[in-house]
Amino acid sequence: MNQMNVAVPADGSLRHQGPELLLAHAAVKARPLTLGAAEGPCRIALVGFGTVGQSVARLLQSRSDERSLCLTYVCNRGIARKMASWTGPDVVWTESMQEILDSDADVVVELMGGLDPAYELVVRALRCGKSVVTANKQLIAHSGSHLLQLASEQGKYLGFGACVAGGVPVLSGLQDGLAGDRIVKIRGILNGTCNYILNRIEQGGISFAEALREAQQAGFAEADPSFDIDGQDAAAKLAILARVGLKVSLEPEKVTCRTIRNLSAIDFAYAKELGCTVRQISTATMKDGQIYAAVGPSLVGNDCSLAKVSGNQNLIVSTGEFGGDTMFGGQGAGGDPTAVAVLSDLMQAAGCRSAEQASFQPARVSSCEATLEVESSHYLRFVVRDRPGIIAALAAVFAKHRLNLHAILQKPGYEKECLPFVITLEPCAQRLLTMALDEIKGFDFLVEPPVSMPIVQ
Amino acid sequence: MNQMNVAVPADGSLRHQGPELLLAHAAVKARPLTLGAAEGPCRIALVGFGTVGQSVARLLQSRSDERSLCLTYVCNRGIARKMASWTGPDVVWTESMQEILDSDADVVVELMGGLDPAYELVVRALRCGKSVVTANKQLIAHSGSHLLQLASEQGKYLGFGACVAGGVPVLSGLQDGLAGDRIVKIRGILNGTCNYILNRIEQGGISFAEALREAQQAGFAEADPSFDIDGQDAAAKLAILARVGLKVSLEPEKVTCRTIRNLSAIDFAYAKELGCTVRQISTATMKDGQIYAAVGPSLVGNDCSLAKVSGNQNLIVSTGEFGGDTMFGGQGAGGDPTAVAVLSDLMQAAGCRSAEQASFQPARVSSCEATLEVESSHYLRFVVRDRPGIIAALAAVFAKHRLNLHAILQKPGYEKECLPFVITLEPCAQRLLTMALDEIKGFDFLVEPPVSMPIVQ
Repeated sequence: MNQMNVAVPADGSLRHQGPELLLAHAAVKARPLTLGAAEGPCRIALVGFGTVGQSVARLLQSRSDERSLCLTYVCNRGIARKMASWTGPDVVWTESMQEILDSDADVVVELMGGLDPAYELVVRALRCGKSVVTANKQLIAHSGSHLLQLASEQGKYLGFGACVAGGVPVLSGLQDGLAGDRIVKIRGILNGTCNYILNRIEQGGISFAEALREAQQAGFAEADPSFDIDGQDAAAKLAILARVGLKVSLEPEKVTCRTIRNLSAIDFAYAKELGCTVRQISTATMKDGQIYAAVGPSLVGNDCSLAKVSGNQNLIVSTGEFGGDTMFGGQGAGGDPTAVAVLSDLMQAAGCRSAEQASFQPARVSSCEATLEVESSHYLRFVVRDRPGIIAALAAVFAKHRLNLHAILQKPGYEKECLPFVITLEPCAQRLLTMALDEIKGFDFLVEPPVSMPIVQ
Repeated sequence: MNQMNVAVPADGSLRHQGPELLLAHAAVKARPLTLGAAEGPCRIALVGFGTVGQSVARLLQSRSDERSLCLTYVCNRGIARKMASWTGPDVVWTESMQEILDSDADVVVELMGGLDPAYELVVRALRCGKSVVTANKQLIAHSGSHLLQLASEQGKYLGFGACVAGGVPVLSGLQDGLAGDRIVKIRGILNGTCNYILNRIEQGGISFAEALREAQQAGFAEADPSFDIDGQDAAAKLAILARVGLKVSLEPEKVTCRTIRNLSAIDFAYAKELGCTVRQISTATMKDGQIYAAVGPSLVGNDCSLAKVSGNQNLIVSTGEFGGDTMFGGQGAGGDPTAVAVLSDLMQAAGCRSAEQASFQPARVSSCEATLEVESSHYLRFVVRDRPGIIAALAAVFAKHRLNLHAILQKPGYEKECLPFVITLEPCAQRLLTMALDEIKGFDFLVEPPVSMPIVQ
């Protein structure tokens, strides 16, 4: 999350200040055209224009065919350096949060991170009748109840789907798709930095310090990585998951955190002996009306889905009393995945999907032709009465249809009268393969029709 | 899905008939008490009382503290045999769909399966102002657009989250959580029967016929398994996923289906040589404004998440232009998981969650104490200056705190002055372990503090 230190006076108010006034002056207040929707588009103000903010702007731009969401304001410290022409001429660039609050923006997207001045901004935005979408996990973990109460009182929307696991829609999954279950346990890999570091210790047999240095060089760890590796980052996410999924109020400070700093390649060697690997696991479990919540390195059985999470991926497993284990996995961080979560919340805020069950509406669904032109590698298994010339006969048919052989495999131990062997083909269109197979089916050396399967990697 | 053959006249109308009239007479029309909500609870009529229907009723029963959803009618053929006392005295039991249509039910839950008479029932229910929730994939795959259009015209809700992958909230994930992305590809394991059969061929080295017989005996395959193994079941689900995720209209008949009948243990042996396994994979990919949609056995690289799906689990991987790959996995079938999806839709239908962002409301979230009493096995790694008596000293501390040793591991090749070894403990509460470790930390043979991790299986 990009930090933005917009100056806030000691009394907490957000006032115009020197340089902001200048910019506010320079900015032309644009009113976007009203296309389509009766009420006009939903006007969006971005506060924080770092990696995620820029991705959100790009996503909004790429959907310019849909005029329901319109970026009208971008607010950031040192805004002159941030101004981008690709956002279009209708965007007002400012350093003044007060200008955002005074504007006609319908939704404020808070992407500053940190509690101060984000909390102040969100409270004031809600109070002046704006909806808010935020990716700020600390803010929601600490003040979510209060802010949602305020949003509810104001009849406004507060979206925070981007706070946990970036683009992985686990919060909406717990809140909507699994609403009918009673969730009793949530486990997950919620911190990509830790997962990257632990992966590197495991694969490279290197020390923690070395793996951390690599992660920092690759941009997966901050200069001060404490928040990630000591567990506070995951604890904030776990607190949000616990509230949404387990329906209990859990202060992030109540989560027991253990660091991964003291791990070494030795632990992976011993874990392997035990049929396990080591991951930073976040757990929240209900037990007899109490909650057990912890973040820290854990041994994970190799068969467990959490053991297979690699790189900076996230995976969350919720356990429901009725539905059993449900998994949500994907890109847990990064500009674009997090921006997807922000945009999904924006669509909710704009009411794009409320009444209309949008995606299934005939009007929103386009018809399109089916194609067989998608290319894939293929596995072909033949069972033949063996005799010389079989490969030559098959190869001639493949050549005729411009299909390239990749490999021929024949395992020992089968009878010549009923000999299975396999040919793999380089990527080709299904249509060409079908024509070739139609021709091959006529060969009298075949004991049964060939088996053909695409190869998914 | 349980089939119900309620007699429908050739003209398609649903009329009272002899036995239904009798039952309708016998039934007392119960009006549930209005508790809490100003508008009273949402009255639910279940049509189809097989495995899923009974699970839905049980789930509703188990939430009796929440009075927003109230089961008022159950309709099934041969209803006398189905009547259950545990549903409470307020439920009207009937064989007459007309009685359901004439009733004051707010939502009709269609759990009959098949197109006829399900289509007729859903159309008529929507027309007379009732919302509908269905788990009928064939119905939605074939007539989803039309039915949603009708629901929209009537201002009613049509929920179908249970149609794909049972309790896995993939449809709501695609529709809400990933709304901000542009999904370009959906791949998945959508048929638990095929996955079970393929798993058995792989593990047991048995023939397809044998594996099918086992699946039938275990209740994972129907007497006529064609729909599952030849791909039509998955094709219907893929058509629904394509509409919701890819926003294209895809008739299930346009999906290229290949059977798994011709596979044998030989294919798994060759797949293994290629670093792969075999799974029934459903794919829908957008390419140049056309769609490629197929269901059939495929080679899947062992590193691919789809290769790791076991038993009758489902896994869906969506690929977004911005968010990359997102995974949804879990129980793809079964009464309780499917009932969770139905109930989630019912909550949507009842507007339980629309305005209030329910789960995050302070009122809905309970506070609870943090506990350290949850039990787990533990891994403890020590690094010591080796000398006799170390294990005895540690074992004495564990015994004092009633902690049971499970194993002691010592890998060769380390120096005696800096010797790492591992002790695993049987499940114990974190609190006891912490006390033991506090004591152990004082031992002078330790080169560094012990590393302690829970073991997750």
